[in-house]
Amino acid sequence: MFDAVFAERFEALLRWRRDVRHFDARAVAEEDMRALLACAALAPSVGNAQPWRFVRLRSPGIREALVAHVDGQNALAAARYAGSDQHAHYLSLKLHGLREAPELLAVFCDERAEAGHGLGLATMPEMLRYSCATAVHTLWLAARVNGIGLGWVSILDPQALGALLDVPAHWSLIALLCLGYPSEHADSPELERRGWQAREPLADRIFER
Amino acid sequence: MFDAVFAERFEALLRWRRDVRHFDARAVAEEDMRALLACAALAPSVGNAQPWRFVRLRSPGIREALVAHVDGQNALAAARYAGSDQHAHYLSLKLHGLREAPELLAVFCDERAEAGHGLGLATMPEMLRYSCATAVHTLWLAARVNGIGLGWVSILDPQALGALLDVPAHWSLIALLCLGYPSEHADSPELERRGWQAREPLADRIFER
Repeated sequence: MFDAVFAERFEALLRWRRDVRHFDARAVAEEDMRALLACAALAPSVGNAQPWRFVRLRSPGIREALVAHVDGQNALAAARYAGSDQHAHYLSLKLHGLREAPELLAVFCDERAEAGHGLGLATMPEMLRYSCATAVHTLWLAARVNGIGLGWVSILDPQALGALLDVPAHWSLIALLCLGYPSEHADSPELERRGWQAREPLADRIFER
Repeated sequence: MFDAVFAERFEALLRWRRDVRHFDARAVAEEDMRALLACAALAPSVGNAQPWRFVRLRSPGIREALVAHVDGQNALAAARYAGSDQHAHYLSLKLHGLREAPELLAVFCDERAEAGHGLGLATMPEMLRYSCATAVHTLWLAARVNGIGLGWVSILDPQALGALLDVPAHWSLIALLCLGYPSEHADSPELERRGWQAREPLADRIFER
């Protein structure tokens, strides 16, 4: 069903997907956002529970509060490197595009999702959250196919974000996402290009039993 | 970089990816397994931590122990539906292909991954596990591109599996995967075709703030 040409392009897609923190001002068309969300909903989910809840963030006040919160958390995170060579390096990294990205999206997991009737959750309730992570990844790849960049921001207090966005207490924050057209494309991670962390040998991560 | 033809095929890939529990006996070529693992390692990861640890399960004794463990856990899971209409329905579902799948793979998350130097983990250490979930999803899509099916089994005790496979205590089990050529292809989930859980409207999962 999928030929060698597609396989080669699919691998290129994996190689050119990036965590994007530098965005152009150009808006993402509403129909493109809708199409990306529809793709995300094709992700796998345990028991077909579809536990993802997508919250589009459109209020300027919420954006401002998010920027303040993440910048504050980032200052705390930076302090963990104080006294080491990594401190100045960390401070030099741009880790989010919350100010510029034309679209912001929070993805939550409904821990009480009724769909799926609990199948596959008896011993691994975290499968609901992993399902949401695959939905984020599906959206990410679909965005890249369409030339749209995505950045996944995790320098935040998930509970504070839930409170700020006034979502039900049984929704867990999985991701805060920035979306927009990237100001550059690359086939290597920005953290690698900036000398923070290179790719490591795959052989070190494969074991046998 | 990716044209409309590719975009259309990529969406078809999302639509035709399935959780597979019915496998042909045909082996997966070793070079194909290697290529799938190489694709999985292109997944995004927090801080570029690459926390995934892939354990290929090749011992017949381990397979036997896994089958016994999962069948036991499945009996316990089924008991949760006792007394409801769903009990017989649940028992009629085939939820794993551990006996037949030519390849078994356990994916763990190294909670102490040194790569990435903790970036992005201060408030969301679970990002390491979400990174591993995206690696599983990457492997899943790459398998489907190559006509290979994957089933993600979660009816198991993650700690018991870690002990059985004798991995470090700080590795968390993310997924037990069955891989092989599927005996059929479908563009709808098996749990939907078997009447357990249909797709739900996307509009019910999108919110604004």
